[in-house]
Amino acid sequence: MALIDEAKHRIPPEIEEVARAEHIDAEKLRRLVVSGKVVIPCNPIAEHRVLKGIGESTSIKVNVNIGTSKDHVDIEEELKKVEVAQKYGADALMDLSTGGDINEIRRKIRMACKLPMGSVPIYQVGVECARKSAIVNMDEDDIFNSIEAHAKDGIDFMTVHCGVTIESVEKLRQTDRVTGVVSRGGAFLVAWILHNKRENPLYANFDYLLELAKKYEFTLSLGDGLRPGCIADASDAPQFQELIILSKLVHRARAAGVQAMVEGPGHVPMNQIEANIRLEKTLTDGAPFYVLGPIVTDVAPGYDHITSAIGGALAGYFGADFLCYVTPSEHLALPTIEDVREGLIASKIAAHAAEVARGKGLDWDRKMSECRYALDWKGMFELAIDRDKAEKYRKTGNIEERAGCTMCGDVCAMKIVSEFLKKPKIDYC
Amino acid sequence: MALIDEAKHRIPPEIEEVARAEHIDAEKLRRLVVSGKVVIPCNPIAEHRVLKGIGESTSIKVNVNIGTSKDHVDIEEELKKVEVAQKYGADALMDLSTGGDINEIRRKIRMACKLPMGSVPIYQVGVECARKSAIVNMDEDDIFNSIEAHAKDGIDFMTVHCGVTIESVEKLRQTDRVTGVVSRGGAFLVAWILHNKRENPLYANFDYLLELAKKYEFTLSLGDGLRPGCIADASDAPQFQELIILSKLVHRARAAGVQAMVEGPGHVPMNQIEANIRLEKTLTDGAPFYVLGPIVTDVAPGYDHITSAIGGALAGYFGADFLCYVTPSEHLALPTIEDVREGLIASKIAAHAAEVARGKGLDWDRKMSECRYALDWKGMFELAIDRDKAEKYRKTGNIEERAGCTMCGDVCAMKIVSEFLKKPKIDYC
Repeated sequence: MALIDEAKHRIPPEIEEVARAEHIDAEKLRRLVVSGKVVIPCNPIAEHRVLKGIGESTSIKVNVNIGTSKDHVDIEEELKKVEVAQKYGADALMDLSTGGDINEIRRKIRMACKLPMGSVPIYQVGVECARKSAIVNMDEDDIFNSIEAHAKDGIDFMTVHCGVTIESVEKLRQTDRVTGVVSRGGAFLVAWILHNKRENPLYANFDYLLELAKKYEFTLSLGDGLRPGCIADASDAPQFQELIILSKLVHRARAAGVQAMVEGPGHVPMNQIEANIRLEKTLTDGAPFYVLGPIVTDVAPGYDHITSAIGGALAGYFGADFLCYVTPSEHLALPTIEDVREGLIASKIAAHAAEVARGKGLDWDRKMSECRYALDWKGMFELAIDRDKAEKYRKTGNIEERAGCTMCGDVCAMKIVSEFLKKPKIDYC
Repeated sequence: MALIDEAKHRIPPEIEEVARAEHIDAEKLRRLVVSGKVVIPCNPIAEHRVLKGIGESTSIKVNVNIGTSKDHVDIEEELKKVEVAQKYGADALMDLSTGGDINEIRRKIRMACKLPMGSVPIYQVGVECARKSAIVNMDEDDIFNSIEAHAKDGIDFMTVHCGVTIESVEKLRQTDRVTGVVSRGGAFLVAWILHNKRENPLYANFDYLLELAKKYEFTLSLGDGLRPGCIADASDAPQFQELIILSKLVHRARAAGVQAMVEGPGHVPMNQIEANIRLEKTLTDGAPFYVLGPIVTDVAPGYDHITSAIGGALAGYFGADFLCYVTPSEHLALPTIEDVREGLIASKIAAHAAEVARGKGLDWDRKMSECRYALDWKGMFELAIDRDKAEKYRKTGNIEERAGCTMCGDVCAMKIVSEFLKKPKIDYC
C-alpha cells in the first residue's frame, strides 16, 4: 500500500525509521506525511536503503546529481561518485545520465546507492529520440513507458516537468528572457509543445502519471522546466505561472495519495529568495520545496558551488527543505569526482548553516568550538564536515608543535587569555 | 590637511577620484566623508595608490590579509600574495606579519602594494615583547611608537583595539564563553589589562591616538578584540559592550576630524547578522562597518571561505561596507598563495551577490547571461570573476565542439528552445 494511504491508518515502519533519525515524534511525522508536508521517497522495489524525510520539521536534505553525457561515458567514474556522495553525507542522489547505455548505468547506480535515488525519465526519452530522429518526435507512450521502466528499477523519486504547458509556454513566449529555457527536460517539452502544437502529455495525462506513481510507489518531484537561468530572468511570469500550475497538481497528487514535492529555481538574487520560498509554501499548502542552488550571481563560473551555497543557505533558512547541490564545474563541464565532493560539502554547509540559523544542530558547532578552545586537533578533525580536507590543510601548515596553528604560532590568543581569565577578582589601578 | 577637514571646505582630489570610480556625485561623497559615513584611507606618505571609498553609497569592498608567522617567514611568498590580491581584484590589503623582520616585511609589502594598506601595530609590539620577555610587559610607549612607525611607512588604516577596556573585560569575565577571546590583538590587551590591572592605553590615551591619526592622516579601524570566536558566543554581552564603547570613540574621532571605521564579528549565525549590522549602524550613526566573515557555522574547517561567503553576502546585503576575506586554511594554517586567491574570490562573490541583491551591478550578470545564451565562451571567460579558473574547468570537460558544454552536449536546452520561440503565432490542437 502507498505510504500516504497506510499512514492514514497507522504508523508504517518507514515513518518510524525517519522519526528516529530526525528525533521527532512518529505520530507528528505521520500527520505531516498524510498532509503532504513531508515526503519519504521509498520505492519498495529498491532494497538496502537509508530512508530520508524531506519537508517540514525534518532537517534540510542535500541531493547530489551524477550521470554520464554523450561526450563522457565512464560507468566506473559514476560509481565512484556514488561512493563519494555516500561517504561525505549526501541525503539523496539523482542519476541524470544521457550518454551510453542509460538503462544499464541507472541499474548499476541503483545497486551501488543506498540513498533515496531520483531520475529524470524525460532525459532518456529525449536523448533516445534525438539519436533516432529529433526530440520533438518523442512519443507520448515513450514518456510514460520510460517512467514505468525507471519505477521498475527502484527509482524513489522522479522529476516530471508537468508544469510546462501551453499556458506557461505562452507566458514564456510573451516574456523577453535573457536565457530562455535552461532546464533540459523543460526545453525538451517546450520544443515538443511548440512543434506538435499539443499539450504536454505529463500534464494532459496527469491522472495516468498518478496511477503509475501509486502503483510503483515513487514520489513525484514536480520539475520547474521554466525556471530562470540567470539573475535577470529571476521571478518572472513564466516561472510563477508554472509554479501556480504545479501547486494545483500537488493538491491532485495528495488527493490521490501520491507523495509529491516541488522543484524551484535556479538563479535568484538574495533579495528574492524569501519571497520565492514563501510563495511556494503558500500556494502548495506546505509541499516540500526542492531547490536547485539557488545561484545568487551569474558572474562566477568555476565557483558556483559557492554562489549556490549562499543561495541555498538563505533558501534553507526561509524554509526550503531539500537542496540540490551545484558543483564548481556548473555552466562549464561535467563534474569530476572531486567536483562532486566540493559541491556536496558546499551544499551541506549551506544546509547546516540554515539549520543553525533556525536554532537547530547547534551541538555540533559547540563541540567543534570546545575542541578549538582546547586546541584538541584530533577532536576538531573528527568533527569536521570534511575530515580529509581539514587534515590536508593542517598538514600544509607544516607545524611540529601540537598546540597552536601556523596563523598565530606561539602567540595564540586563546592560550594567552585563558591563563588570565581564571583569576576570581582583580583590583585595577 | 586631513581629508575630513579639507572636505569641509572643498572637494579634495581624493574624493573626486573615488566619486569617479564609484559613479557617484562628488559633492554627495564629500558630505558622506565629512559626516564619517564614508572613509577613504589615504596616508599621503604612500605613493602610487588606488584610492577606495568605504561606506554608504559606495560598492562593498574586500580586504585580503597576508603576513608571516613565527613558523613561516618567506617574504617572496608574501609579495606573490600581494600580486595575486591585486590581480584578482582585492580592494585593500592588510599585512599581519608576526614573524621575521616585521619592519622590513611591511615596507616591502607597502612598496609592492598599490591598494589601501592596513596593519595591526599591536601584533608587532606583542610579538617583539614576547621575544624579549612576555606580552604583558608591553610598554605604553612601545604601542604608540609602533603606530607612529607604521604611519611613517605609509600605512593607510590601522586596527586599534580601543574597545578592550576594564569595563568590557569585566563583562568578559562575567560571561561563560566557549572560546574566550580569539582576536590576537584583543587577547594581547585583555592579558595586559588583567596582568597590569590598568586601563588599555589605546583607550586611556585615545586623544593621543587621534593626534597621531590626524598628524599622519591614517584611518582608524576600531578593532573588535572581544568578537565572538564561535556560534555559541555570538552576539553576547562582551561583544556588544565593546561595540558600545567603540561607537563612542567613533563620535570622538569624527569630532577630531579623524576617519574611522568599526570592525565586526567574526562568527555569527545567519539569523543574527541583520541585527548586528543594524546595531552598528545605529550606534555609530552610520560609520563604515568592516566585518570579518562572518562565519555562519563552526563545523567546516577547510571550507571557511564558503562559510564566510554566506555570512559576508548577508552582511553586505544588510549594509556592511567592507568584507575581510577568510581563506580555506582559516582555523588550520597560514594561507598559501592559492588560499589567498580562493579566499579573495569567495569574498568578492559575497560582495557582488550582496550588491546584486541591493539592485546594483546587475549589468555584469546580464552580460554574462547573454554570453551564456549565445554560447559565447570567449565572452564568458572575459566576464568571469576568475577567468583562469573558468577556463581550467572548461578544459577539464575535454570537449571539441565549440557549442554546448559536456553537461548537456548536443541536447543543449538553450539551443533547442531558441529555435522554436522565434515563431510569432502557434495554433495549438
